[in-house]
Amino acid sequence: MRYTAPGFLLVALVTLLAVILSIVLAVNVARKRVRYGVQAPSMSGHPEFERAFRIHANTVEYLAPFLAALWLCAIYLQPLVAAIVGVVWIVGRIVYAFGYSAAAAKRTPGFGISMAALILLVLGALVGIVSAYLGQPWR
Amino acid sequence: MRYTAPGFLLVALVTLLAVILSIVLAVNVARKRVRYGVQAPSMSGHPEFERAFRIHANTVEYLAPFLAALWLCAIYLQPLVAAIVGVVWIVGRIVYAFGYSAAAAKRTPGFGISMAALILLVLGALVGIVSAYLGQPWR
Amino acid sequence: MRYTAPGFLLVALVTLLAVILSIVLAVNVARKRVRYGVQAPSMSGHPEFERAFRIHANTVEYLAPFLAALWLCAIYLQPLVAAIVGVVWIVGRIVYAFGYSAAAAKRTPGFGISMAALILLVLGALVGIVSAYLGQPWR
Repeated sequence: MRYTAPGFLLVALVTLLAVILSIVLAVNVARKRVRYGVQAPSMSGHPEFERAFRIHANTVEYLAPFLAALWLCAIYLQPLVAAIVGVVWIVGRIVYAFGYSAAAAKRTPGFGISMAALILLVLGALVGIVSAYLGQPWR
Repeated sequence: MRYTAPGFLLVALVTLLAVILSIVLAVNVARKRVRYGVQAPSMSGHPEFERAFRIHANTVEYLAPFLAALWLCAIYLQPLVAAIVGVVWIVGRIVYAFGYSAAAAKRTPGFGISMAALILLVLGALVGIVSAYLGQPWR
Repeated sequence: MRYTAPGFLLVALVTLLAVILSIVLAVNVARKRVRYGVQAPSMSGHPEFERAFRIHANTVEYLAPFLAALWLCAIYLQPLVAAIVGVVWIVGRIVYAFGYSAAAAKRTPGFGISMAALILLVLGALVGIVSAYLGQPWR
């Protein structure tokens, strides 16, 4: 495993994009807080603010699981496959953000895309780990 | 350090299990939201839903610290030790989920188990990092 | 890349410090919950508790993005630079915790410091990844 191999550079870029997305969603919460006059530390008071808050919170709740599964899939299965599924996760999260921003009921498609991508990464990582175990010389 | 060494494969598996646990707890929040008719983006309205929400939120809040301490302990101290303590953390979180689900007062034992495991991982990582520093050839 | 090189040992220490900070902030939420009699699973009821809750939640929301950017910057750009900017992030988060604890309006300076450090880490990681791509032998 070389971190400078092209596949891993893509995985690193996908990681950075997910980090940038989480920052953008957080900035959006701060903007909505000011716009709708929701005083900190309150996390409720206006539906637009509450949706922006939940978009950010839900995405960040899935960020550690996503990054862990992404890198395990990259290391143990294949970096390029992990990077591509990682892009799908990010696209799903962007669709989720725009959908949920419009209406709570429209949050489902984007969430579904990102959840499917996460499950693929978990399965990919699992296959990779089991293969690495089966390929052990000491077995 | 070889990521395909048996100890690291176990650490990778523990990481995947923690990721899967976080997904299961999230799915449980979604199920309770539907069952008790709590409309998104609201995060309150029924105690059963609120407990499910807090079980997930609290576990996810500790996921990044746990995974960071787990891998530092694995890399700098010993992967097998890290994997075993990591399993204890996951068991603690499952006990926490079932306990808290039954009643808020029953959330303490599982939380205590997972917190003890996290502190052990932090201490193990610290010992490993200091040992690696003391073992530097340039010292 | 050697994880036992002095620069990486510092990055590992910064990671541990961030983990310890997140635990300290979580313990503070539990203490305030008891002191002000806020019953779990409720996350509101007393402004002191709510501020302690938000200090922890906001710091943890940024923990996965911070750790991801820190390590990408360390691996692809330079570990010592990453460690130093990482310390700035932690200092910013401590300033944020004390400021927000005193009053919601005093949360801004510490947040600004940690956000500036995070953006530096993201930019550093981006420069490092692009440089690694440009230095590929197959290009």
